[in-house]
Amino acid sequence: MSSGTASALAHPNIAFIKYWGNLDGSLNLPSNGSISMNLGSLQTATTVQFEPLLTADTLEINQQTQTGPSLKRVQNFMGHIRRLSKSGLFAHIRSESNFPISAGLASSASAYAALALAATAALGIDQTEKELSSLARLGSGSAARSIPAGFVEWHASETHAGSFAKSIAGPDYWDLRDMIVIIQKQPKSTGSADGHGLADTSPFQSLRVENAPTRLEICRQAILERDFAHLAEIVELDSMMMHAVMMTSRPPLFYWEPLTLQIIKSVQNWRRDGLQVCVTVDAGSNLHLICPFGYTQMVTEMLKTTSGIQSVMVSPPGGPAHLI
Amino acid sequence: MSSGTASALAHPNIAFIKYWGNLDGSLNLPSNGSISMNLGSLQTATTVQFEPLLTADTLEINQQTQTGPSLKRVQNFMGHIRRLSKSGLFAHIRSESNFPISAGLASSASAYAALALAATAALGIDQTEKELSSLARLGSGSAARSIPAGFVEWHASETHAGSFAKSIAGPDYWDLRDMIVIIQKQPKSTGSADGHGLADTSPFQSLRVENAPTRLEICRQAILERDFAHLAEIVELDSMMMHAVMMTSRPPLFYWEPLTLQIIKSVQNWRRDGLQVCVTVDAGSNLHLICPFGYTQMVTEMLKTTSGIQSVMVSPPGGPAHLI
Repeated sequence: MSSGTASALAHPNIAFIKYWGNLDGSLNLPSNGSISMNLGSLQTATTVQFEPLLTADTLEINQQTQTGPSLKRVQNFMGHIRRLSKSGLFAHIRSESNFPISAGLASSASAYAALALAATAALGIDQTEKELSSLARLGSGSAARSIPAGFVEWHASETHAGSFAKSIAGPDYWDLRDMIVIIQKQPKSTGSADGHGLADTSPFQSLRVENAPTRLEICRQAILERDFAHLAEIVELDSMMMHAVMMTSRPPLFYWEPLTLQIIKSVQNWRRDGLQVCVTVDAGSNLHLICPFGYTQMVTEMLKTTSGIQSVMVSPPGGPAHLI
Repeated sequence: MSSGTASALAHPNIAFIKYWGNLDGSLNLPSNGSISMNLGSLQTATTVQFEPLLTADTLEINQQTQTGPSLKRVQNFMGHIRRLSKSGLFAHIRSESNFPISAGLASSASAYAALALAATAALGIDQTEKELSSLARLGSGSAARSIPAGFVEWHASETHAGSFAKSIAGPDYWDLRDMIVIIQKQPKSTGSADGHGLADTSPFQSLRVENAPTRLEICRQAILERDFAHLAEIVELDSMMMHAVMMTSRPPLFYWEPLTLQIIKSVQNWRRDGLQVCVTVDAGSNLHLICPFGYTQMVTEMLKTTSGIQSVMVSPPGGPAHLI
């Protein structure tokens, strides 16, 4: 396995129950558990090549050599891998994603999941899925959820080893679609890593965290029972609760654009009119409309009535991170 | 005093710390105290004329004879007045407002404050300001705040007599302006009377209520010290907290339009750039931009850069409800 080089592929994920706020920011130990679905149509493929002569890790994202904060963050993460393997080697890292990065699409989730798997494989470090999930979490919290397959729950824990994600149901269990509505391609103004640090300044965060086990239970059951009505209600409530925390932080964080709000309201009207669809928004302005496969076409038609949408990507549930 | 006819004028008010949710909906006993500023430029003038031959109260608003729910609500309120006076007489009620009604502009506040004062005067019932405030509250909760002058605090209480508003400072104490930004003149889809009943279905309402004394204290002090920076921060936080409760209710209430959100974000940017202005939104889509008088012109200029605004009304602090 360990040729010094390995490549891995991982999917980003959309959270049905969101991660917002940390117990420990340096370890990305979240304040509350979360549930997500991997996005099979979106992927990041990463190759890690350890080279004895290198004196620092290098990073290329979509064929662009990186410097500055994004390189620094990857180098920090590679430091964890080196400590794990007792290796002193540095690596060339090349990563390609087939979707816009830094727009609330959790690009760091698939990136760090793929990197964790490729880097450990390249060094021949044997990792269970749990260990890999915890490791990926050190790079980007939600990357923990991009390691297992399909519908995934990430457990809150006060320890590194205890805070990993595992699959609730495989990608074939429920034929849902995430319709990702892109209204803005620019990177968001406050990255989610910084945003997490503000969560505790909101008067609502403690209650959001305390109430999380209830929301997780409702969401988990809705997935296991393929109960769209209950899924829709809890997904939207949880998304609103996170944005309520953001908007009541000091300083307040407003990730929504006016068009985000317009589409949120439209989706609620469509559902009232009988369409099985719900909406969730991450730390960005783009929207994720979740629906059973059979409703995809109708939702597409409805979205055509809204101006200002740049593009819509449709994704089924995705598999686990894997070597390629 | 009692000729059987009296006329009174009252101003609507804009809440700096909002009323949302009731301990007792039938008595409009609020879950939390609130603070507001009367709006001197906006007014409702109401004439009440008791007539021995009438068999039911009649109501004319802006020269339109009313039937249905708005008449029924006024008749219920007049029932309280009749019980108070032990009178069996019914009245012709004529009301005129100089601003759009039912658009989140608290038209019912000035209407019921003016009605309470005119009706009791017409029947010769002597009322202290406190009693009048509690009485007006029975018609519309926030009408309690339109009885006293200027900057007003309405106290939460479990009893009718204890839940009244009184002045913190007169209208001349602080030369603020409310710039009311009208983006939509249609009546809102869920009236605030119905909305209050949903407050307790939000997971955030209990915390919003528990935390209210702290916000009231900060707001009261900011008014007394004419400290705009602190006023701005608490006014915006409180408004966001109310809308967070609304958006996480079941069913969720979204009073904001996309343009509402856009202007909220603009105001926060303007303040970051040094403009003394903050924003608050009631149960409607229109916005209230609060600023010291000296900033009115600059805020007006900034608003001109935003398209979609129908009109802007500017109001200084207003006096108490009074007979005319």
